[in-house]
Amino acid sequence: MRHSSRAEVDPFIVMDVMEAARAAEEAGRHIIHMEVGQPGSGAPRAARERLVAEMEAGPLGYTVALGRPDLREAIAALYGEWYDLDLDPARVVITAGASGAFLLAFSALFDAGDKVALGEPCYPSYRQILRALSLVPVGLQTDLASRYQPLPRQMSGDLAGLIVASPANPTGTMLDKTAMGALAGSCAERGISLISDEIYHGLQYNGRAISALELTDEVYVVNSFSKYFSMTGWRLGWMVVPPDHVRLIERLAQNMFICPPHAAQVAALGALSPEGRAELDGHRAVYAANRALMLEGLAAAGFDRVAPADGAFYVYADVSEITTDSQAFCAEILEQAGVAVTPGLDFDPVRGERTVRFSYARATADIEEGLARLKGFMSTRAAAE
Amino acid sequence: MRHSSRAEVDPFIVMDVMEAARAAEEAGRHIIHMEVGQPGSGAPRAARERLVAEMEAGPLGYTVALGRPDLREAIAALYGEWYDLDLDPARVVITAGASGAFLLAFSALFDAGDKVALGEPCYPSYRQILRALSLVPVGLQTDLASRYQPLPRQMSGDLAGLIVASPANPTGTMLDKTAMGALAGSCAERGISLISDEIYHGLQYNGRAISALELTDEVYVVNSFSKYFSMTGWRLGWMVVPPDHVRLIERLAQNMFICPPHAAQVAALGALSPEGRAELDGHRAVYAANRALMLEGLAAAGFDRVAPADGAFYVYADVSEITTDSQAFCAEILEQAGVAVTPGLDFDPVRGERTVRFSYARATADIEEGLARLKGFMSTRAAAE
Ligand SMILES: Cc1ncc(COP(=O)(O)O)c(C=O)c1O
Ligand SMILES: Cc1ncc(COP(=O)(O)O)c(C=O)c1O
Repeated sequence: MRHSSRAEVDPFIVMDVMEAARAAEEAGRHIIHMEVGQPGSGAPRAARERLVAEMEAGPLGYTVALGRPDLREAIAALYGEWYDLDLDPARVVITAGASGAFLLAFSALFDAGDKVALGEPCYPSYRQILRALSLVPVGLQTDLASRYQPLPRQMSGDLAGLIVASPANPTGTMLDKTAMGALAGSCAERGISLISDEIYHGLQYNGRAISALELTDEVYVVNSFSKYFSMTGWRLGWMVVPPDHVRLIERLAQNMFICPPHAAQVAALGALSPEGRAELDGHRAVYAANRALMLEGLAAAGFDRVAPADGAFYVYADVSEITTDSQAFCAEILEQAGVAVTPGLDFDPVRGERTVRFSYARATADIEEGLARLKGFMSTRAAAE
Repeated sequence: MRHSSRAEVDPFIVMDVMEAARAAEEAGRHIIHMEVGQPGSGAPRAARERLVAEMEAGPLGYTVALGRPDLREAIAALYGEWYDLDLDPARVVITAGASGAFLLAFSALFDAGDKVALGEPCYPSYRQILRALSLVPVGLQTDLASRYQPLPRQMSGDLAGLIVASPANPTGTMLDKTAMGALAGSCAERGISLISDEIYHGLQYNGRAISALELTDEVYVVNSFSKYFSMTGWRLGWMVVPPDHVRLIERLAQNMFICPPHAAQVAALGALSPEGRAELDGHRAVYAANRALMLEGLAAAGFDRVAPADGAFYVYADVSEITTDSQAFCAEILEQAGVAVTPGLDFDPVRGERTVRFSYARATADIEEGLARLKGFMSTRAAAE
């Protein structure tokens, strides 16, 4: 059977790292996981309790395509709390993760052949989902001067869209209000549809993450229960879309997804309760402690050229003074130090051979052990050279 | 903000019926629901119990993109039980419902502009998902002579794909081994990719549903936990793909979905247990009883031109002798008889003005009451004419 040309998406390199780590563990080694981009914690207790209760009360059938009204209202309320915004729940669309939101947003906004820009380094699936939808990803190279975020002067008139993320994966950097406003303004001027990936909101350590909604209503904002809410496997997220796009998205969602996972919607309501939120804020405190350890420990190990780690749970390091083959270098770290880390190639096909991403989403004890191993590894390596 | 042209998908007409039914209920009326295509029952007890247990045991993080190996194995075993096939679990791909399977299959098989055929009447979302992916749906008109299923002589060389469903929605009709074999052969000859929607397998009343896999390995078979397994809101399904397509689908799934909903995967394992299966077979017995009542009761009411209701939980009636405006007719039935039914326009844009779909997925008492109301309505209507 033949396959389409759009199906020819790149593999995830981190998967090879994960497989190598798994094989090492199977062979009896103890591995510290700094490669995976997901919390070590699960859904809050309140989320699980809510699900148990509703599951016994009646069948979890299809919900309406845009998601349960009570959940849409609870999310709209979050915009009051987090950004002091008065958001109409009618604009909140519940999705099958941020991933499902991208499928809806890209289909709603772009036609086959359209060019969509993304700042590089970035979350690798943007590029691959665009390709799978017959769209053309345009990588904009970013650097430390702009906190690895794209700049208005990089926009051109032939772009149909721009995807930004703040805090970003893999860098953790944020766009401040001025930078976000400049990008939104530039998009508006040029008729470029702006998609703001805000999946790491709730996890920031240097001031407050700015939502694109604070600057404009002409934006698709994407968020998720995967990160701050610690519910990756539940596959639940949401979008906020312009008022005149709600019906359009509703029709697409009815057909493409029928509805977002109902059990996850119920659990999310529990996660949004005061008890759920308290538990989640506890996780954030752990990440904050981990981050401080990371910045100090990585520098001590020799990884001192890092992006400003404003949010999320990543440190992105320039390792060009150590290697020009990040993949081999990560394999070496796993082999020698028993620490799994991600080569930058997944995030930046151009310069990723000289970068590495460290995740600090796991328990603090793991972070401490990982940092000690990295330090030992780097000093042995330096001595050998 | 502008939107894409591919986002211009048609609305579901059944949604208007559901909204009208809801409004009537809110106004205090009692409505019998024969419009919705989902079981009135929920996930089996064994599914819920399994989820409660695993949810307490540890976090439900991202699974691998193709789904949990234990679930893929359990599904492969089902092919032994149902069709006496020895299926390699490596070919089973867990998806976010049959809906998620279509998104993966269409992206994997077709490029923008490709033509994909479907027999009409059919599940409306095939057409809309194809459009959202910049593909061109080609409706093949079917009729009673072929049990409302497409025929090999309707295939033409410019088609990239064909979607068949057996048992089908809205008709409930099945393809026998000869008919399925002829379609598969014709597709192979012409280089047309065959997608077989087998979501209603497990729900058949006239002999056994044939899987396309019994005839060829060169097919994408789509199935789901929504119908026989009674787990619509959980958003879980699966595909069986040719061995040399597994890696391709894995990469697409990693990027487009990350993974199928983990909680649903756990629940599905419970549904597949002997206790789960026993509960589900009980539902099937209810549908079988409902179906017998429906065929008799609908005929008695005057709906006697129906498609052969081999499987699923639908009866599709030709009402051309009663009306040429199925939408107005359904509104009238709801208003006068308090029974919600679906106009055929959702399934067949050409001839659906003269057809109606009745669903019998609810409790038997509801079916009895609905049939009595329909009979009363039709005799009053005849008397008035
Ligand atoms: C920046 C970013 N966006 C989106 C996603 C997708 O998240 P999900 O589909 O789990 O909501 C991820 C996952 O790692 C991410 O890092
Ligand atoms: C024929 C057919 N295929 C696919 C689907 C989608 O099912 P799901 O995404 O819930 O698995 C339906 C839903 O009604 C259907 O009737």
